[in-house]
Amino acid sequence: ILEIKTTVICPATQKHVKKYLSQEMFLVEETGEDYLSTTLPYIESQSFSVQWVYNILEKKAEADRIVFEDPDPDTGFVLLPDFKWDQKQLDDLYLTAFVHQRNIKSLRDLTSDHLPLLRNISKKGKESIQKQYCMPACKVRVYLHYQPSYYHLHVHFTSLNYGLERAHLLTDVIMNLEADPQYYQNRTITYTLRADDNLLLRFREAGRC
Amino acid sequence: ILEIKTTVICPATQKHVKKYLSQEMFLVEETGEDYLSTTLPYIESQSFSVQWVYNILEKKAEADRIVFEDPDPDTGFVLLPDFKWDQKQLDDLYLTAFVHQRNIKSLRDLTSDHLPLLRNISKKGKESIQKQYCMPACKVRVYLHYQPSYYHLHVHFTSLNYGLERAHLLTDVIMNLEADPQYYQNRTITYTLRADDNLLLRFREAGRC
Repeated sequence: ILEIKTTVICPATQKHVKKYLSQEMFLVEETGEDYLSTTLPYIESQSFSVQWVYNILEKKAEADRIVFEDPDPDTGFVLLPDFKWDQKQLDDLYLTAFVHQRNIKSLRDLTSDHLPLLRNISKKGKESIQKQYCMPACKVRVYLHYQPSYYHLHVHFTSLNYGLERAHLLTDVIMNLEADPQYYQNRTITYTLRADDNLLLRFREAGRC
Repeated sequence: ILEIKTTVICPATQKHVKKYLSQEMFLVEETGEDYLSTTLPYIESQSFSVQWVYNILEKKAEADRIVFEDPDPDTGFVLLPDFKWDQKQLDDLYLTAFVHQRNIKSLRDLTSDHLPLLRNISKKGKESIQKQYCMPACKVRVYLHYQPSYYHLHVHFTSLNYGLERAHLLTDVIMNLEADPQYYQNRTITYTLRADDNLLLRFREAGRC
């Protein structure tokens, strides 16, 4: 069996080059304690800026691209098409919901207190996409990434063609929090990190990888 | 941005042709009740043969390819390289563990009674792979598929380069069963089905998709 896979990206940014150059990956089984002692200090030390998210939430940027907004400060969110999607066909549908609440970094911060927020995103996000794009709910996958690309809670809505590498389905997240309010504080979460990821370095320093 | 992806498979079987011809996928949220009323009758009506697995377990086939065996009838398993892996490099490492117990169709049948089996597979499978291939545990992903390709419980051991579409990590399965003995009987499990999958037809007939 001969199987050839080719990917051409043009133009390629430094980030693309880095992505395809070094492919070595490592599996991390991050316990709740690892998060507090290794991951959280790492996130805080990097002080990743999410000002661009605040600009979207405050309508200082991309206001004309908003597909749906629920302005409620607790359960509300803004839904926009992702820049990876040109909106010309539904094959690669990709929207992102940014929550109005600003104190939720990731999946790890979620407790059962956030269930009204999560249920609201699930329901209204799917309804908006069905209305705007005639895309039925059984064709849309709704999920969070862990680790996320940036530490302001956001939810992905994509067609089924996208990979699921770091994905946590929103329906699973909701069921887990219904069963255990502290599920994401206590749970060991497994994910992969690239060899050149600084977080991996922290795990190695902590003797956890 | 121009992004071209090409896959060449040669020679291609009918199954390969089918796989790449029709790509429409549907998301199924299978409740525990759906499993009993729709999925299980479908599996039983198809009477998929797993005789080839029994042949492996009984050493009537592929005995020379066995990497490790634990012969215990309750917690034992046979570990073999998958045919997709030519064993020439570790990049695409792929082994499968077949359990000796014959009454476990899939993830759905697992209860906390199976924890000794699952922990045994996790521990001894990873140890064998480390010993045989010098592949450390943090480079190997251990998971079950749902739906599986065949209904005799088996566990995949792969390098991190493989996709995760239907994967349920074995560490997650173990933690879920530790928390709730009936987790996989009661839980809604989400997966995708291709448009031409007969199981999807059953879900449509049941008005569940």
